[in-house]
Amino acid sequence: MAKVKVNKKELFELSSKLLAMYGVPEEDARTVAASLIDADARGISSHGVVRLVQYAERLKKGLVNPKPEIRTERFGCLLSVDGDNGLGQIVAMRTLEKCMELALEIGGVFAFIRASNHFGAAGYYTRMAAERGYAAFATSNAGPSVPPYGGIEPMLGTNPFSFSFPAGKYGDFTIDCATSAAAKGKIRLYAREGKEIPLGWAMDADGNDTTDAAKAVLGGLLPMGWHKGYGLAMATDVLCGLLSGGKLSHESESMYGCSAAAGTGHFFWLVRIDKLTDVKLFEARAEAWFDELKASRRRPGVDEILIPGEIENRLFAKSEETIEIPESVVCDIKNAMCEGGCSI
Amino acid sequence: MAKVKVNKKELFELSSKLLAMYGVPEEDARTVAASLIDADARGISSHGVVRLVQYAERLKKGLVNPKPEIRTERFGCLLSVDGDNGLGQIVAMRTLEKCMELALEIGGVFAFIRASNHFGAAGYYTRMAAERGYAAFATSNAGPSVPPYGGIEPMLGTNPFSFSFPAGKYGDFTIDCATSAAAKGKIRLYAREGKEIPLGWAMDADGNDTTDAAKAVLGGLLPMGWHKGYGLAMATDVLCGLLSGGKLSHESESMYGCSAAAGTGHFFWLVRIDKLTDVKLFEARAEAWFDELKASRRRPGVDEILIPGEIENRLFAKSEETIEIPESVVCDIKNAMCEGGCSI
Repeated sequence: MAKVKVNKKELFELSSKLLAMYGVPEEDARTVAASLIDADARGISSHGVVRLVQYAERLKKGLVNPKPEIRTERFGCLLSVDGDNGLGQIVAMRTLEKCMELALEIGGVFAFIRASNHFGAAGYYTRMAAERGYAAFATSNAGPSVPPYGGIEPMLGTNPFSFSFPAGKYGDFTIDCATSAAAKGKIRLYAREGKEIPLGWAMDADGNDTTDAAKAVLGGLLPMGWHKGYGLAMATDVLCGLLSGGKLSHESESMYGCSAAAGTGHFFWLVRIDKLTDVKLFEARAEAWFDELKASRRRPGVDEILIPGEIENRLFAKSEETIEIPESVVCDIKNAMCEGGCSI
Repeated sequence: MAKVKVNKKELFELSSKLLAMYGVPEEDARTVAASLIDADARGISSHGVVRLVQYAERLKKGLVNPKPEIRTERFGCLLSVDGDNGLGQIVAMRTLEKCMELALEIGGVFAFIRASNHFGAAGYYTRMAAERGYAAFATSNAGPSVPPYGGIEPMLGTNPFSFSFPAGKYGDFTIDCATSAAAKGKIRLYAREGKEIPLGWAMDADGNDTTDAAKAVLGGLLPMGWHKGYGLAMATDVLCGLLSGGKLSHESESMYGCSAAAGTGHFFWLVRIDKLTDVKLFEARAEAWFDELKASRRRPGVDEILIPGEIENRLFAKSEETIEIPESVVCDIKNAMCEGGCSI
């Protein structure tokens, strides 16, 4: 996918404007735009502004509520949240703020969220919490694309999860990944470029292992680590679908669908680090540990041992003014704005 | 590994007696024996009574405290536990009981445990919580055996995790697995039988991928799902090592070492299902979901789609009176008892 450099601020304004055109309050539009641009700035284009046109499309069709009334019930350290079919970023950010507030008071919190939508990269929320002194976990279910282990029919979502904590000079540690071996978008990209995919990423439509990306596009994704990713994807679905009182992956609609509310669910847990240990000591130990891991002997052909999130943070530091995004995105956004009645 | 059928009750008495010989109070000895025998009854021999002799060995050398004074501090929904170098099962069970009690009151709980030892199968604790109406997560760090992603030197433990919830007619859902691609014990077994291991399980001593089990025994384990298992193993270490105020994997000693206290850490979180949703509805939805997954179309050569924990629960149901354990285990236990001064 060819990329172009664009001015970050301009893209932010353009993105916010597009969402506002479809009835999203200005502040909320900026919240969503900021999350997508953050992903692009960290090199995670799959979760960046490339998604924006799809968000607009679903708002236009009335499949997403631009002005949700998010309702939260609390029992002890549990929050149960009804997202009222709002944009995932809005539902998630409002919940995250409540989580941080409550964890400050009682040390930790669990939040179970139903009736939401695609919330972008899970790591956006956990990293934000880490920057404010929390260890945080986030996961979300998604429309079905992954068959159960041994099966052919997609019944589970890619159900990604993220975990972050603050790490001194390293900024933060953030693991943010799908429970499938690879993302469908990545396989599509390989197919477009005529490249073979590694064995273990996907099956063809008949359920056979394949390295043929074009065939894999028509088949199901394989879970990461065999039965392990399958178990993790199911665990996510229980947290986001059953315990939230919402939909399971196979009951929910993909963000690329266009017939119903998605019904996506999310799950967060946060703990306040300073209620458990001395934060300075915690960060100093994390730093020393990372230093040691990075200085350890490497496998042949490996240039550097990386800490989860390190590459993304380096890219982010370099993208203060401009970011690289897929070439077609700006054009797509402008087209969507024209369709929405705005001449630019 | 050849297996023999033994009477479950007799093995339980024998196992408890061995631990009691080394100063473990009778009730605690029975707690530990029960956890190991439960693993054998579910077909997880790697975490069964085969570990007992090693526990006895470490008690004998004074490396494990048979009568720990477990101290727990609480802040809100956070428990911080010092295991006082007790047997992992004792530290974990005491903590689990406190967790269940507290979650009943405030909906959920996080427990960070330091200065413990090998606690057997993580699923033992989460399954027990599931049977009592909780969704539960458990993880533990362990002595170093897995290099960082791209590295050769073992710096992380196999750092297993487990997640369970109750599931009506299915009993429970339990995923219980290492964050490494395979267990070292499994690779040793392949080496003994002269079998090749799958690519992706381990590297040789020089860091090259290998299918030669004998060479893999001398090298490091690979993480499950490439960088994903690496990130998960690190997340476990932060929870069990840094947030608990205890040791990281590479600072702790393997249960097979014999020079120092292990310093193993654990982490639990539990939520009380009935504080979030109607339990009957929850279980009915889980059952229907499992039924649907199991009835979905299968890949060529696959006889049955399984729910995580299903095989283990079937084996357990068949092992009410007798269980199968590795042939050498009874003999090893009896030898250890003789060494301890008991003539049987």
